[in-house]
Amino acid sequence: MNVGIEWLIDAEGCSPGFLRDLHRMKRVCDLIIADLDLRSVGEPMWHQFPAPGGVTGLVLLTESHLACHTYPELGVVTFNLYCCRLRPEWPWEARLTEMLGASRVSVRSLARGEDVTGYEEAVLVERSHSGREG
Amino acid sequence: MNVGIEWLIDAEGCSPGFLRDLHRMKRVCDLIIADLDLRSVGEPMWHQFPAPGGVTGLVLLTESHLACHTYPELGVVTFNLYCCRLRPEWPWEARLTEMLGASRVSVRSLARGEDVTGYEEAVLVERSHSGREG
Repeated sequence: MNVGIEWLIDAEGCSPGFLRDLHRMKRVCDLIIADLDLRSVGEPMWHQFPAPGGVTGLVLLTESHLACHTYPELGVVTFNLYCCRLRPEWPWEARLTEMLGASRVSVRSLARGEDVTGYEEAVLVERSHSGREG
Repeated sequence: MNVGIEWLIDAEGCSPGFLRDLHRMKRVCDLIIADLDLRSVGEPMWHQFPAPGGVTGLVLLTESHLACHTYPELGVVTFNLYCCRLRPEWPWEARLTEMLGASRVSVRSLARGEDVTGYEEAVLVERSHSGREG
Protein backbone atom coordinates (compact mmCIF):
# COMPACT_ATOMS: atom_id res chain seq x y z
CA MET A 1 0.00 0.00 0.00
CA ASN A 2 1.84 3.07 -1.19
CA VAL A 3 1.72 5.90 1.34
CA GLY A 4 4.30 8.18 -0.21
CA ILE A 5 7.74 8.64 -1.57
CA GLU A 6 10.97 9.34 0.24
CA TRP A 7 14.02 11.01 -1.23
CA LEU A 8 17.37 10.26 0.39
CA ILE A 9 20.07 12.71 -0.60
CA ASP A 10 23.75 12.34 0.28
CA ALA A 11 26.13 15.11 -0.76
CA GLU A 12 29.91 15.13 -0.44
CA GLY A 13 32.64 17.71 -0.88
CA CYS A 14 30.67 20.52 0.77
CA SER A 15 32.34 23.48 2.45
CA PRO A 16 32.80 22.64 6.16
CA GLY A 17 32.04 26.26 7.07
CA PHE A 18 28.69 26.13 5.29
CA LEU A 19 27.80 22.86 7.04
CA ARG A 20 28.37 24.48 10.46
CA ASP A 21 26.29 27.52 9.52
CA LEU A 22 22.86 27.00 11.02
CA HIS A 23 21.48 30.04 9.23
CA ARG A 24 22.60 28.75 5.84
CA MET A 25 21.24 25.26 6.50
CA LYS A 26 17.89 26.76 7.48
CA ARG A 27 17.90 28.72 4.23
CA VAL A 28 18.41 25.51 2.23
CA CYS A 29 15.50 23.83 4.01
CA ASP A 30 13.29 26.89 3.66
CA LEU A 31 13.96 26.92 -0.07
CA ILE A 32 13.07 23.23 -0.44
CA ILE A 33 9.82 23.84 1.43
CA ALA A 34 8.93 26.95 -0.58
CA ASP A 35 9.86 25.49 -3.98
CA LEU A 36 7.86 22.31 -3.43
CA ASP A 37 4.93 24.14 -1.83
CA LEU A 38 5.20 22.12 1.38
CA ARG A 39 3.65 23.23 4.66
CA SER A 40 5.50 23.18 7.95
CA VAL A 41 3.56 22.27 11.12
CA GLY A 42 4.80 23.97 14.29
CA GLU A 43 8.36 25.18 14.70
CA PRO A 44 11.13 23.23 12.99
CA MET A 45 13.68 21.72 15.40
CA TRP A 46 17.29 22.72 14.86
CA HIS A 47 20.30 21.70 16.89
CA GLN A 48 23.91 22.76 16.58
CA PHE A 49 26.29 20.13 17.95
CA PRO A 50 29.53 21.25 19.61
CA ALA A 51 32.52 21.53 17.22
CA PRO A 52 33.61 19.62 15.23
CA GLY A 53 29.97 18.50 14.95
CA GLY A 54 27.44 19.85 12.54
CA VAL A 55 23.77 20.70 12.66
CA THR A 56 20.56 18.70 12.55
CA GLY A 57 17.22 20.03 11.38
CA LEU A 58 13.82 18.33 11.51
CA VAL A 59 10.73 19.84 9.96
CA LEU A 60 7.30 18.31 10.50
CA LEU A 61 5.23 18.83 7.34
CA THR A 62 1.58 18.27 6.59
CA GLU A 63 3.03 16.18 3.74
CA SER A 64 5.32 14.20 6.15
CA HIS A 65 8.85 15.45 7.01
CA LEU A 66 12.18 16.92 6.00
CA ALA A 67 15.37 16.05 7.89
CA CYS A 68 18.92 17.26 7.44
CA HIS A 69 22.21 16.30 9.09
CA THR A 70 25.61 17.82 8.41
CA TYR A 71 29.08 16.38 9.02
CA PRO A 72 31.45 19.33 8.51
CA GLU A 73 34.54 17.28 9.33
CA LEU A 74 33.73 15.06 6.32
CA GLY A 75 32.14 17.68 4.04
CA VAL A 76 28.97 15.57 3.99
CA VAL A 77 25.32 16.56 4.31
CA THR A 78 22.33 14.24 4.12
CA PHE A 79 18.65 15.05 3.62
CA ASN A 80 15.50 12.99 3.88
CA LEU A 81 12.35 14.32 2.28
CA TYR A 82 9.30 12.17 2.83
CA CYS A 83 6.13 13.25 1.02
CA CYS A 84 2.79 11.51 1.24
CA ARG A 85 1.62 13.48 -1.80
CA LEU A 86 3.24 13.56 -5.21
CA ARG A 87 5.76 16.34 -5.62
CA PRO A 88 8.10 17.24 -8.45
CA GLU A 89 11.74 16.45 -7.82
CA TRP A 90 13.77 19.29 -6.34
CA PRO A 91 17.00 20.15 -8.22
CA TRP A 92 19.16 18.76 -5.40
CA GLU A 93 22.32 18.51 -7.45
CA ALA A 94 22.25 22.09 -8.74
CA ARG A 95 21.11 23.71 -5.48
CA LEU A 96 23.46 21.83 -3.15
CA THR A 97 26.36 22.63 -5.46
CA GLU A 98 25.44 26.34 -5.47
CA MET A 99 24.49 26.72 -1.82
CA LEU A 100 26.84 24.31 -0.03
CA GLY A 101 29.66 23.75 -2.52
CA ALA A 102 28.85 20.05 -2.97
CA SER A 103 31.03 18.21 -5.48
CA ARG A 104 28.98 15.03 -5.55
CA VAL A 105 25.26 14.62 -4.93
CA SER A 106 23.39 11.35 -4.93
CA VAL A 107 19.61 11.17 -4.94
CA ARG A 108 17.72 7.98 -4.22
CA SER A 109 13.99 7.73 -3.99
CA LEU A 110 11.95 4.93 -2.52
CA ALA A 111 8.27 4.21 -2.23
CA ARG A 112 7.00 3.94 1.35
CA GLY A 113 4.37 1.50 2.54
CA GLU A 114 4.94 -0.73 -0.47
CA ASP A 115 5.31 -4.46 -0.42
CA VAL A 116 9.09 -4.25 -0.54
CA THR A 117 9.53 -7.86 -1.59
CA GLY A 118 9.56 -6.20 -5.01
CA TYR A 119 12.21 -3.88 -3.63
CA GLU A 120 14.29 -3.31 -6.75
CA GLU A 121 11.24 -1.87 -8.47
CA ALA A 122 10.56 0.43 -5.53
CA VAL A 123 13.77 2.32 -6.17
CA LEU A 124 12.28 4.86 -8.51
CA VAL A 125 15.24 7.11 -9.00
CA GLU A 126 18.85 6.45 -8.35
CA ARG A 127 21.43 8.77 -9.60
CA SER A 128 24.88 9.80 -8.74
CA HIS A 129 26.63 12.85 -10.01
CA SER A 130 30.33 13.40 -9.85
CA GLY A 131 32.29 16.55 -10.59
CA ARG A 132 31.14 20.10 -10.37
CA GLU A 133 30.86 22.11 -13.53
CA GLY A 134 32.40 25.48 -14.23
CA MET B 1 32.03 8.34 3.06
CA ASN B 2 29.80 6.42 5.41
CA VAL B 3 28.11 8.66 7.97
CA GLY B 4 25.59 6.21 9.34
CA ILE B 5 22.87 3.75 8.69
CA GLU B 6 19.18 4.32 8.16
CA TRP B 7 16.44 1.82 8.79
CA LEU B 8 13.19 2.26 6.87
CA ILE B 9 10.33 0.29 8.34
CA ASP B 10 6.92 -0.09 6.71
CA ALA B 11 4.25 -2.05 8.57
CA GLU B 12 0.80 -3.01 7.30
CA GLY B 13 -2.32 -4.50 8.83
CA CYS B 14 -2.08 -2.46 12.05
CA SER B 15 -5.10 -1.63 14.17
CA PRO B 16 -6.46 1.76 13.02
CA GLY B 17 -7.31 2.67 16.63
CA PHE B 18 -3.71 2.11 17.73
CA LEU B 19 -2.43 4.25 14.85
CA ARG B 20 -4.62 7.17 16.00
CA ASP B 21 -3.49 6.79 19.61
CA LEU B 22 -0.79 9.39 20.18
CA HIS B 23 0.01 7.97 23.61
CA ARG B 24 0.59 4.49 22.20
CA MET B 25 2.74 5.78 19.33
CA LYS B 26 4.85 7.73 21.82
CA ARG B 27 5.28 4.53 23.85
CA VAL B 28 6.56 2.68 20.77
CA CYS B 29 9.10 5.45 20.06
CA ASP B 30 10.15 5.65 23.71
CA LEU B 31 10.78 1.92 23.71
CA ILE B 32 12.92 2.09 20.55
CA ILE B 33 14.97 4.91 22.13
CA ALA B 34 15.38 3.12 25.46
CA ASP B 35 16.19 -0.30 23.97
CA LEU B 36 18.82 1.10 21.61
CA ASP B 37 20.26 3.45 24.22
CA LEU B 38 19.61 6.52 22.05
CA ARG B 39 19.52 10.04 23.44
CA SER B 40 16.80 12.53 22.57
CA VAL B 41 17.76 16.21 22.19
CA GLY B 42 15.04 18.68 23.22
CA GLU B 43 11.36 17.79 23.13
CA PRO B 44 10.13 15.38 20.46
CA MET B 45 7.57 16.89 18.06
CA TRP B 46 4.25 15.13 17.83
CA HIS B 47 1.27 16.08 15.73
CA GLN B 48 -2.18 14.52 15.54
CA PHE B 49 -3.83 15.17 12.19
CA PRO B 50 -7.63 15.57 12.06
CA ALA B 51 -9.56 12.32 11.44
CA PRO B 52 -9.22 10.21 9.38
CA GLY B 53 -5.54 11.23 9.58
CA GLY B 54 -2.96 9.73 11.84
CA VAL B 55 -0.04 11.02 13.85
CA THR B 56 3.48 12.11 13.06
CA GLY B 57 6.38 12.04 15.49
CA LEU B 58 9.90 13.39 15.02
CA VAL B 59 12.65 12.88 17.58
CA LEU B 60 15.99 14.62 17.25
CA LEU B 61 18.69 12.32 18.62
CA THR B 62 22.35 12.87 19.36
CA GLU B 63 22.71 9.84 17.06
CA SER B 64 20.56 11.45 14.29
CA HIS B 65 16.75 11.00 14.24
CA LEU B 66 13.67 8.87 14.56
CA ALA B 67 10.51 9.63 12.57
CA CYS B 68 7.14 7.93 12.54
CA HIS B 69 4.00 8.45 10.44
CA THR B 70 0.72 6.58 10.78
CA TYR B 71 -2.06 6.08 8.22
CA PRO B 72 -4.97 4.62 10.23
CA GLU B 73 -7.27 4.50 7.21
CA LEU B 74 -4.81 2.08 5.58
CA GLY B 75 -3.52 0.29 8.69
CA VAL B 76 -0.01 1.44 7.78
CA VAL B 77 2.78 2.90 9.91
CA THR B 78 6.25 3.87 8.73
CA PHE B 79 9.38 4.57 10.77
CA ASN B 80 12.76 6.01 9.88
CA LEU B 81 15.63 5.47 12.27
CA TYR B 82 18.85 7.14 11.24
CA CYS B 83 21.89 6.42 13.41
CA CYS B 84 25.34 7.84 12.88
CA ARG B 85 26.73 5.25 15.31
CA LEU B 86 26.42 1.53 15.06
CA ARG B 87 23.40 0.12 16.84
CA PRO B 88 21.99 -3.38 17.06
CA GLU B 89 18.84 -3.96 15.04
CA TRP B 90 15.60 -3.43 16.95
CA PRO B 91 13.09 -6.35 16.79
CA TRP B 92 10.71 -4.32 14.59
CA GLU B 93 8.69 -7.28 13.41
CA ALA B 94 7.99 -8.69 16.87
CA ARG B 95 7.37 -5.36 18.60
CA LEU B 96 5.14 -3.83 15.91
CA THR B 97 3.10 -7.01 15.81
CA GLU B 98 2.68 -6.95 19.62
CA MET B 99 2.16 -3.22 20.09
CA LEU B 100 0.30 -2.19 16.92
CA GLY B 101 -1.17 -5.42 15.60
CA ALA B 102 0.94 -5.35 12.42
CA SER B 103 0.47 -8.33 10.10
CA ARG B 104 3.36 -7.51 7.78
CA VAL B 105 6.57 -5.66 8.61
CA SER B 106 9.32 -4.82 6.17
CA VAL B 107 12.70 -3.55 7.28
CA ARG B 108 15.19 -2.03 4.88
CA SER B 109 18.48 -0.54 5.88
CA LEU B 110 20.73 1.67 3.84
CA ALA B 111 24.11 3.22 4.39
CA ARG B 112 24.12 7.03 4.36
CA GLY B 113 26.84 9.19 2.87
CA GLU B 114 28.12 6.30 0.77
CA ASP B 115 29.04 6.47 -2.85
CA VAL B 116 25.69 5.08 -3.95
CA THR B 117 26.89 4.18 -7.40
CA GLY B 118 27.51 0.87 -5.64
CA TYR B 119 23.94 1.09 -4.45
CA GLU B 120 22.97 -2.57 -4.44
CA GLU B 121 25.76 -3.24 -1.95
CA ALA B 122 24.60 -0.40 0.25
CA VAL B 123 21.33 -2.17 0.97
CA LEU B 124 22.52 -4.03 4.01
CA VAL B 125 19.31 -5.64 5.12
CA GLU B 126 16.16 -6.23 3.23
CA ARG B 127 13.52 -8.41 4.62
CA SER B 128 9.83 -8.80 4.39
CA HIS B 129 7.67 -10.80 6.70
CA SER B 130 4.19 -11.89 5.93
CA GLY B 131 1.66 -13.47 8.24
CA ARG B 132 1.40 -13.16 11.97
CA GLU B 133 1.99 -16.25 14.04
CA GLY B 134 -0.31 -17.70 16.62
